[in-house]
Amino acid sequence: MSQPINLAIVGTGIFATDNHLPTIQKIPGLKPYAAYNRTKSKAETFAEKANIASDKVYDSLEEIFEDKDVEFVDALLPVQFNVDAVKLAVKNNKPICFEKPIAANLDQAKEIVKLSESTDLPILVLENWAYLKAIDILKNEILPKIGDVVAFTYNATGPFNDANKYLATGWRLKPEHIGGFLSDGGVHQLALLTEVLGDVESVSGLTQQLKEQSGTDDVLFSTLKTAKGAIGTFTYGSAFGATDKSTFFKIFGTNGSATYDWSPSLPKPQITYATGATSGQASSKTTIEIDEVNTIEEEFKNFKDAVANKDKKLVKVPPRKAFHHLAIVAAALESSKNNGSNVKVETP
Amino acid sequence: MSQPINLAIVGTGIFATDNHLPTIQKIPGLKPYAAYNRTKSKAETFAEKANIASDKVYDSLEEIFEDKDVEFVDALLPVQFNVDAVKLAVKNNKPICFEKPIAANLDQAKEIVKLSESTDLPILVLENWAYLKAIDILKNEILPKIGDVVAFTYNATGPFNDANKYLATGWRLKPEHIGGFLSDGGVHQLALLTEVLGDVESVSGLTQQLKEQSGTDDVLFSTLKTAKGAIGTFTYGSAFGATDKSTFFKIFGTNGSATYDWSPSLPKPQITYATGATSGQASSKTTIEIDEVNTIEEEFKNFKDAVANKDKKLVKVPPRKAFHHLAIVAAALESSKNNGSNVKVETP
Repeated sequence: MSQPINLAIVGTGIFATDNHLPTIQKIPGLKPYAAYNRTKSKAETFAEKANIASDKVYDSLEEIFEDKDVEFVDALLPVQFNVDAVKLAVKNNKPICFEKPIAANLDQAKEIVKLSESTDLPILVLENWAYLKAIDILKNEILPKIGDVVAFTYNATGPFNDANKYLATGWRLKPEHIGGFLSDGGVHQLALLTEVLGDVESVSGLTQQLKEQSGTDDVLFSTLKTAKGAIGTFTYGSAFGATDKSTFFKIFGTNGSATYDWSPSLPKPQITYATGATSGQASSKTTIEIDEVNTIEEEFKNFKDAVANKDKKLVKVPPRKAFHHLAIVAAALESSKNNGSNVKVETP
Repeated sequence: MSQPINLAIVGTGIFATDNHLPTIQKIPGLKPYAAYNRTKSKAETFAEKANIASDKVYDSLEEIFEDKDVEFVDALLPVQFNVDAVKLAVKNNKPICFEKPIAANLDQAKEIVKLSESTDLPILVLENWAYLKAIDILKNEILPKIGDVVAFTYNATGPFNDANKYLATGWRLKPEHIGGFLSDGGVHQLALLTEVLGDVESVSGLTQQLKEQSGTDDVLFSTLKTAKGAIGTFTYGSAFGATDKSTFFKIFGTNGSATYDWSPSLPKPQITYATGATSGQASSKTTIEIDEVNTIEEEFKNFKDAVANKDKKLVKVPPRKAFHHLAIVAAALESSKNNGSNVKVETP
């Protein structure tokens, strides 16, 4: 049996503790080895839970990247620090995965893309939605049946959740990242959308700030045009008043349509589709219930493979891809400033 | 008992025969008195069904407007002729109601608004959706409960219906009116939307032509900003491949949200709402089933009242209002030509 891979966790907050750690512990061959947090006591608490030796709780980001025995770094930093972490990774030739959004703004994101493409190191943005099993089913099983995709409606709307544990995190309350929750959560939605439909070419967006606690605009209504020529709407926001959480992605093709619905009111996420070019030629509807995978587990397995094989091509969400998700949000925000003008999505 | 009001029907096609005539016959005090159609035999067939004397089947539009005993004209012409009919109405001092969309383009529509505002004659655009009972319930019962309206999603999508009897009408197959089905059907949707939310200030729209038979672009995905500052999406098209006909209007307020759903799969149209500013403060959901009125009957009753009372202020959909519906479509079409740019909605 091969040696486990030593990994260092930096930014040992809620998400590291509640999600990354149990996931990492579940994956054979991954070993939490070192930890760092700006508030050292939090790293120590985390280290105890993770069975990390106390002398592997470091006082600075630099030290952890310089540790020869750390084989990759898992970073969960306020996003404005992602670029610094990637710089240290490249400098120390250490593979790194880090949480989305890729960066606080497109300038930083461009720098990360540039850095990542200057090296053979595996560098992964932890955009777990890209690993959704629903994406594979839509792309490989369903879309081939409904003809060419011509249009779509993407809707992810929900009520403002007073009890949201992530709402109180300082970097979210006073966001340095563009769009606050619109980029923080929006990139997940756009990862799903673009994995299925391909790149987005341009955006016309309108935003509003509904809740003071959001720190900045928190709902987005927009139209998108994809590079392949499909048109549609993209609606995102979890800052509304009382409303059902409604999450669905409807795709219209020349020979039918499909709806992926992952609203929490459903027992399981589901895809419903019908084929035929007109109502007269319509098939009956088929519904597929999805046994979804643990997407966080999938992204760590993916990164582990890339690190073990020293092969950056195995990385499913390289910075260039995550750049695109953030660039769509940036285009929507710029558009909204101009009352809903059309804005081309930037490339790195 | 007072004398019945004599009305003349011009444009005696499918809709006049199947809808206007039985509705008019149901309303006490209205009497079909004269008829005109470009193909005279069709007017004669209609006159027989309507018990109109054969000498009251006219050879020209002019003659029918000149008949002293005709008390108002009900016009169902290819929309590009609406402006001519209104000119004759004003010239002959004869009240007129005519089918939507108001005109084939904004120039004609402006002329109609100008003509209608130069006279005290009752002039009504037969936009029957403005009479939906759902509008009153939303505006007067529900919206006051959900706070200030901040956002909305308006969706009316359906499959291309091969058996649509209106598809084969010549003026629709080779549309002279802007946007073809997008204005023809779109103005209904926009009448509903604006009766509830007020005027639309600007639009960013993307359109496509999915079916050759539509004659021009037939699906629209857009964002709207209302004069009162709400933002949202407006999606309209009945040219898709196999898909459920899905018609819903979701309204987000500062203190809750409401969804009006009139999808034909429902036993009755319904409004569902919940109140509260956040998920933690959410009330349980309330659903109201709507016993909808016959909107065509309502519009004729409305016009009869306006004619009987010689009071144009009683008219529920004067040309200025119907102009706005068409102007929103025009803005969306102009926007789409520019890739989804933001376009201000024109005023007459």
